[in-house]
Amino acid sequence: METFRRVAIVGVGLIGGSLGMALRARGLAREVVGVPRSLATIGQACRRGAIDRGTIDPAEGVDGADLVVLAVPPDQIVPMARRVAPHLPAGALLTDVASVKAAIVSGIEAGVGTRGEVAFVGGHPMAGNEGRGVDAAEPGLFAGTAYLLTPTSRTPRAGVERLAQLARALGAVPMEMSPEEHDRTVARVSHLPYLVAAALMGAVGGAGPAAGPSLRGATRVAASPVAMWAQICRLNRAPIQEALRVFRQELDRLEAALADERRLDTLLEAARETRLRLGGSAGDPERG
Amino acid sequence: METFRRVAIVGVGLIGGSLGMALRARGLAREVVGVPRSLATIGQACRRGAIDRGTIDPAEGVDGADLVVLAVPPDQIVPMARRVAPHLPAGALLTDVASVKAAIVSGIEAGVGTRGEVAFVGGHPMAGNEGRGVDAAEPGLFAGTAYLLTPTSRTPRAGVERLAQLARALGAVPMEMSPEEHDRTVARVSHLPYLVAAALMGAVGGAGPAAGPSLRGATRVAASPVAMWAQICRLNRAPIQEALRVFRQELDRLEAALADERRLDTLLEAARETRLRLGGSAGDPERG
Repeated sequence: METFRRVAIVGVGLIGGSLGMALRARGLAREVVGVPRSLATIGQACRRGAIDRGTIDPAEGVDGADLVVLAVPPDQIVPMARRVAPHLPAGALLTDVASVKAAIVSGIEAGVGTRGEVAFVGGHPMAGNEGRGVDAAEPGLFAGTAYLLTPTSRTPRAGVERLAQLARALGAVPMEMSPEEHDRTVARVSHLPYLVAAALMGAVGGAGPAAGPSLRGATRVAASPVAMWAQICRLNRAPIQEALRVFRQELDRLEAALADERRLDTLLEAARETRLRLGGSAGDPERG
Repeated sequence: METFRRVAIVGVGLIGGSLGMALRARGLAREVVGVPRSLATIGQACRRGAIDRGTIDPAEGVDGADLVVLAVPPDQIVPMARRVAPHLPAGALLTDVASVKAAIVSGIEAGVGTRGEVAFVGGHPMAGNEGRGVDAAEPGLFAGTAYLLTPTSRTPRAGVERLAQLARALGAVPMEMSPEEHDRTVARVSHLPYLVAAALMGAVGGAGPAAGPSLRGATRVAASPVAMWAQICRLNRAPIQEALRVFRQELDRLEAALADERRLDTLLEAARETRLRLGGSAGDPERG
């Protein structure tokens, strides 16, 4: 793909930092500028190889960038988009990495004014690990993962194509869906499993020391930092409630089948086949 | 610990095979005799280093053994105990590896007649992987895992001590509890997470391709063979129903807190602390 001249990454934590490392390691950007909240993070990010240089001033950070990635926490994406918009060069591609999309995409499309033509394309890499901050960043974080793109009728097609190319260049698999479909999808495959893991922890009681590896595997995501997940739960409440409803139905069907071994066999075999189709092993949990 | 002269392993699958490999690799038995169902498995198990020799005749297999491990599926443990009991040498230690205990321990204590003094101690190593059969066996399967021992008032203390020593010699952590407490415990830490993983697979619907690593990690156990789990669900139904009840309560509390960010934070932080106390990473799921 075309190499970006200058990529500005606003928010240099786990995802922003990993993106910077991957862009630099794969030669996808001539320069990566980091815009963290603190000066200390600039030094850390430079030492980790995540950025070439940094500033804590977002306006200065996005100056001359042809790709700007907003990698701040979900509830700061729209305010940050507003803040940097007047400083974006014409022709720039603007994207974010938030785990919820409908509220953020409509917030940016409705309320962010740019000087020239700027393509905004919502994005969500389904990657992460249990760590936090740029110290937990890894250049290979995106390899083999889904990278969800959420264009609307207002999104320039060329911008979608460029972001999809970038996702592929990172080793990820781009998947397009509307912001609303995204939120329903991740409610099922990410937010629901997180809440279920938290509920399993509540149900363990004093039995923890007897736990085998399957409980550890099933609940690893419950060890990740709470702040981001709490935001996600607030921003994506309705799709999460719907996912919980469907999950409870499935659990009820399984419990009803406890008394009927053939029926239980059928349900468990279907679950097994779905799991085998998912493929892959249990990697690190995504960040929301 | 004292080295066993001859260990008979009845049922040479994943757990029986791994036990044989571990006993031989650690020099804990002078001879390991395997008693699988088929002649073909004898050859496989010998090639894998799981046994020294084998026979498909249980009576012949346990002849002269000072340790007999029943590693057949849960619903075959009591019939197999009955079958081998008349052939057990006096002073032998008899144990099993089944994932449910109350029904099995009372079945053996009530209905198995031996010639001489034989100590039966129920056991359950919380170890496993997604594979099946001796080809999936690993000598390190028990390292760092809990090994649950379920004595009753009728269990000779010396037998419990010997099995605990063996567990430690395998690198596992022995934990004593009554058969009933065992069944309640594993319902929460093993059987519940399995059913929850199966229900998550049912709830995924068409969203699978977008799944990130946390869903894969949370549901890995759902890929393991169904037959054993279906037996477990039947044999441990009441404790599983109780675990499901507690889990649903926890999930309801979390859902109610979706509208109250501070309350949600508190619950998620508590879950996170429980998970961090569990420690360890996500290894392979245990076999039931």
